[in-house]
Formats: sequence, structure tokens, C-alpha cells
Amino acid sequence: SSSSDLITATLFPGDGIGPEIAESVKQVFRIAEVPIQWEEHFVGTEVDPRTQSFLTWESLESVRRNKIGLKGPMATPIGKGHRSLNLTLRKELNLYANVRPCYSLPGYKTRYDDVDLVTIRENTEGEYSGLEHQVVRGVVESIKIITRQASLRVAEYAFHYAKAHGRERVSAIHKANIMQKTDGLFLKCCREVAEKYPEIKYEEVVIDNCCMMLVKNPALFDVLVMPNLYGDIISDLCAGLIGGLGLTPSCNIGEGGVALAEAVHGSAPDIAGKNKANPTALLLSSVSMLRHLELHDKADRIQNAILDTIAEGKYRTADLGGSSSTSDFTKAICDHL
Amino acid sequence: SSSSDLITATLFPGDGIGPEIAESVKQVFRIAEVPIQWEEHFVGTEVDPRTQSFLTWESLESVRRNKIGLKGPMATPIGKGHRSLNLTLRKELNLYANVRPCYSLPGYKTRYDDVDLVTIRENTEGEYSGLEHQVVRGVVESIKIITRQASLRVAEYAFHYAKAHGRERVSAIHKANIMQKTDGLFLKCCREVAEKYPEIKYEEVVIDNCCMMLVKNPALFDVLVMPNLYGDIISDLCAGLIGGLGLTPSCNIGEGGVALAEAVHGSAPDIAGKNKANPTALLLSSVSMLRHLELHDKADRIQNAILDTIAEGKYRTADLGGSSSTSDFTKAICDHL
Ligand SMILES: CC(C)[C@H](C(=O)O)[C@@H](O)C(=O)O
Ligand SMILES: CC(C)[C@H](C(=O)O)[C@@H](O)C(=O)O
Repeated sequence: SSSSDLITATLFPGDGIGPEIAESVKQVFRIAEVPIQWEEHFVGTEVDPRTQSFLTWESLESVRRNKIGLKGPMATPIGKGHRSLNLTLRKELNLYANVRPCYSLPGYKTRYDDVDLVTIRENTEGEYSGLEHQVVRGVVESIKIITRQASLRVAEYAFHYAKAHGRERVSAIHKANIMQKTDGLFLKCCREVAEKYPEIKYEEVVIDNCCMMLVKNPALFDVLVMPNLYGDIISDLCAGLIGGLGLTPSCNIGEGGVALAEAVHGSAPDIAGKNKANPTALLLSSVSMLRHLELHDKADRIQNAILDTIAEGKYRTADLGGSSSTSDFTKAICDHL
Repeated sequence: SSSSDLITATLFPGDGIGPEIAESVKQVFRIAEVPIQWEEHFVGTEVDPRTQSFLTWESLESVRRNKIGLKGPMATPIGKGHRSLNLTLRKELNLYANVRPCYSLPGYKTRYDDVDLVTIRENTEGEYSGLEHQVVRGVVESIKIITRQASLRVAEYAFHYAKAHGRERVSAIHKANIMQKTDGLFLKCCREVAEKYPEIKYEEVVIDNCCMMLVKNPALFDVLVMPNLYGDIISDLCAGLIGGLGLTPSCNIGEGGVALAEAVHGSAPDIAGKNKANPTALLLSSVSMLRHLELHDKADRIQNAILDTIAEGKYRTADLGGSSSTSDFTKAICDHL
């Protein structure tokens, strides 16, 4: 097929183990004949004044233009005078919802075998406003901002997602018994949207109680929607239930149909370049990306090949207690395709 | 012995199942011959203008005078114009640290059998400042306040506690990568205190990662110290690991040596008065109270009797899958004494 039939997607291989696991995705996509051509972008070596970060303006333009991207782990360089890479992407691309499906992987044993939920995190405001100051010496404050617009937007996305994916229930997670105005507004927006989706059950769960219920009985939950920090906390907790961030996909949804899928684990500099990294999180994120493009056949095929390879248990990387290399694990997935 | 040899402690039986489980404690203390006489206080039926809540001024004075108390669950009446009972107690009595030991109970099976940690939560500020306002229509903010004074105070308590209880490590939980000023100040204070306790290991763990580690491998943790909301979330998560809030003690430490132990579960109005409630959390909280009074012999005896009764498994209340009444379970504990 000519390149004009191909969808162009931006690829940020990222740092550390990023290039190796991105290579896995490229290989799997080739074998599965996914109609995607990659436009690769790398983190710059100096601060780009237009992004105030080490991300180049061109790389952001690429995602804006292609409206679809995949991102490996990026280590924000230490030092002052620039913004975190992750936060820059979220802000500049207006990535308002972070979606993380989390389900028990057949064959990979943890203490839980009945997890099947999706966390949907508001990704642009809340405790991440960046507004902090010292009031007097020894007294500092930070400001959490909740807006009606962003709350409606993420609630709308959560209910839309639940409906599109045949999910039954949306739980809004909050601490409105303490933060009555901010979390109260978030809940009010969720309730408004819930009314438009009478076929989806709606409930509200206080965050402390939610965490207790999640570790006791995660099967109680289906789709969870919440403000930024609670989403940060709960999505990691949920990843822990099924084995960790090395196994969970993530996809950021932006205004105007933009989607940037990403592996949310670290760049693991200690094993970088050693052909030891587990590409599962990035591979499953690439599956999320394909679903966003409605390439469900390809997504199903690749997801099944990944899950079958893990279930089979013959090839496993070191983080899962095995000794396979990244390339052998990837080859095993390709063989399943 | 004459009543002058007795220590006077304030008792808030509380609402719902409160009176029944408080009765358990009274009975166990009688059998164990604990040298305590109770001064009982009840939540008022109208708002006391001096406390701005349904708590009476007299009841607060009682805790201030006795410096020691035990509290059952209290349901804050719904409506405006008054403060939550829990928050009033924390504020008025300056209960700056909330201490929750959390350990796997032998014989009561959950997915975890290796939990043995203590969460120490800053209890007076942070996200609980109560400062919230609408900026413009549809935009609300709430303010998180972290002070050097309160952070040092709770850090000091955590290290003191770790040392006194033969614990090896204190982990400060934070999100200073995002809230650099507020959580940054909290960490700075923890580091300052850590330097005075070279025999205690000190580490800093980001809250999202902490939650993931807790569900994967809680044995990694020992003593955890953190700002208010993180403590709220993590202490409930930890309770979930070992079976829930019905099994975990809690003790609030205030300025001037005041301690108010409490069961942090709800008042369970559905089973109130039915002799079905599990008194374990309040009983273990009363043990925390005895330890605060340095009545370690009595504390050990009662704690062992509770744990032995649970381990034996013959008498268990409905919440633990059994069918024992509160009074039979309590009697079993007394028989173990
Ligand atoms: C690295 C950090 C700033 C980030 C966050 O807090 O959002 C991470 O934890 C995540 O969940 O993507
Ligand atoms: C009831 C609620 C206000 C309270 C809190 O958030 O502190 C509770 O969750 C607790 O942990 O004691």
C-alpha cells in the first residue's frame, strides 16, 4: 500500500529503556501490518523557549497535526528554569483525560485475580495548578482549582467511555465531605452528566473509602472518574493490584480528538540498553492508541498476542520474575500474531 | 482500691453501635482490672455555641482535664451552621497526630499476611484548612496549608514513636514533585528531624508510588508519616489490607500530652442496638490508650486476649463472616484474660 493510505502517528521513544520498548512496538506493528507510519520525535537537549521545556515545539506540532501519538518514558532533566515534560505535554496539548484500563493478566499471578476497571483522571487542573506560595515564613499554601468546564469535560468523557465500552457503572471519587466547594463542584458536574446516561449506574465514593474497597475487593469497581491527584494515586494503586506500572496501558485524551498513549512507568536507566526491559505497558498503550483510531481488529489481535504470551509464561522479562530479553519476549508476541 | 488511685478517662460512647462497643471496652477493662474510671460524655442534641458543633463544651473540658479519652463512632448530624464532630475535636483539642498501627491479625485471613506498619498522619492542617472559595462562577479553589510548626511537630512525633517502639524506619510520604512548596516544606521538616535520629532509617516516597508499593508488598513499610489528606487515604488503604476499619485502632495525640483514642469506622446505624457490632477497633483503640498511659502490662494482656480470640476463630461477629453477638465475642475475650 502506498504511504498515503497510512495513518501518521507521532512516536516519542523517550529516555532510558524507551527506545528499546518503542522498538518492540514498531516490530509488533510491522508483523501485524498496522497501517501506521511513525513520525519520531526526541526530547531536545536544551530548553525550547516556546515550550519552556526540553520538548521541542516541532514535536508538539507533530502531535497536534497527527492527532495521535505514542510516548515512552521521559526523564525530566533536573534543574530549574524549565517545566516537566509530562506536565508540558498535558498543558500544551490540553490532554484533559488520562485513561488507564487495569485488568488482571491471566497467568500472571498477584494477590488479585478479579481486577477489571478503568480509571479516568482529570489531567489539567486540581492540585496540579502550580499555584503555590509562601504566606509568611514557615507557612506555605498551594491552591487546588476545580472548574466546571474541566469537570464536565472529564465526566462527559467517562460516561461516553463507559457506554462505548459496554461498562455498567461510573464511580466518582472525591473528598467532598472535607473539600465541599472544590470536590463538591466536581461531583455536581458528574451528577449533571450522569443524568444524560440513565443506562449507566452512577455512584459517589469518598477517596479514603475507595482505597479501602479497592484493596479489599476491586471487583466492586468498573469505571472510576476523579480529580487529578486522586487519579494519580488511585491509578497507581490499581496498577499495583495487577503487578505494577510495567503492565498497565495509559492514554491521554485531548481537545479536538487528540490522543497520546503512554507507558507511565519510569525510564529505568539502570537497565537501559541491556535488552532487559518489559515492553508490555508501551505495547498495551499502543493497543489503546489503535482503539482510539477505531482499528479494533488490529488492537484485538495485538492485545491477544500480548496476553497469550504472558499467560503462556514461557517468555517473561526480569521484572516479572523471568529471564527473557526484550527482543525474545517481543518475538514471542510476534509468533502469536 | 479507692477511687483516688484510679485514672479518670473521658469516654464518648458515640452514636449507632457506639454504646454497645463501648460497653465491651468497659467490661473488658473491669475483668482486666484496669485502674481507670470513665467519665462519660454524650454528643449534645443542639449546637453548643462555644464549640460551634453538637459537642458540648463540657465534654471538651473533660478531655482537656483528664488528658486521656476514648471515643466511639460519632455521626455528624446533617445540616448547616455547625462543624463536623471529628474536625471539632481535632481543632479544639489540637490533636496534631493521628496514629494508626496496622498489622495482619493471625487467623483472620485476607490477601495479605505480612502487614506490620504504623501510619502517622498530620491531623490539623493541609487540605483540611477549610479555606475554599469561588473565584468566578464555575471556578472554585481550596487552599492547602503546610506550616513548619505542624510539620516539625508530627515528624518529631513519628521519630519519637519509631524509637520508643523499636521500629527501624520512617518513610515520609509526599507529592513534592508537584507541590514543591507545600510538600517540599513538609519533607524539609522531616529531614531536619531525621538528622536527630541517626539510628532510625529515613526515606521519602511519592504518594502514588507508595500506594502501589503498599498493595504489592506492604512489608516494605514500617512507620509512615505524612500530611493530612495523604494520611487519610493511606491509613484507610492499610486498614483494607488487613480486613477493614472494624479491626484497626487509632489514637490522636494532642499538645500537652492529651491523647484521644478512637474507632474510626462508622456508626453502622443499620445494626445499632442489635448486639451484632464488632468491638475490635474500639477495643484495640483502648489498648492504644493504655499504652499512651504506659500501662503496658494491661495493654499486653488485653491485646493478646483480643488477638487470641480472633485467631481461635470460634467467636466472630458478622462483619468477619461469623455469627457471634457483640456480647458473646466480648465474653470470649474476657475468658481469655
Ligand atoms: C511524574 C509525575 C509528575 C506524574 C504525575 O504526578 O502526574 C506521574 O506520577 C503520572 O502519574 O503520570
Ligand atoms: C469523616 C472524615 C471527615 C474523616 C477525615 O477525613 O479525616 C475520616 O475519614 C477519618 O479518617 O477520620
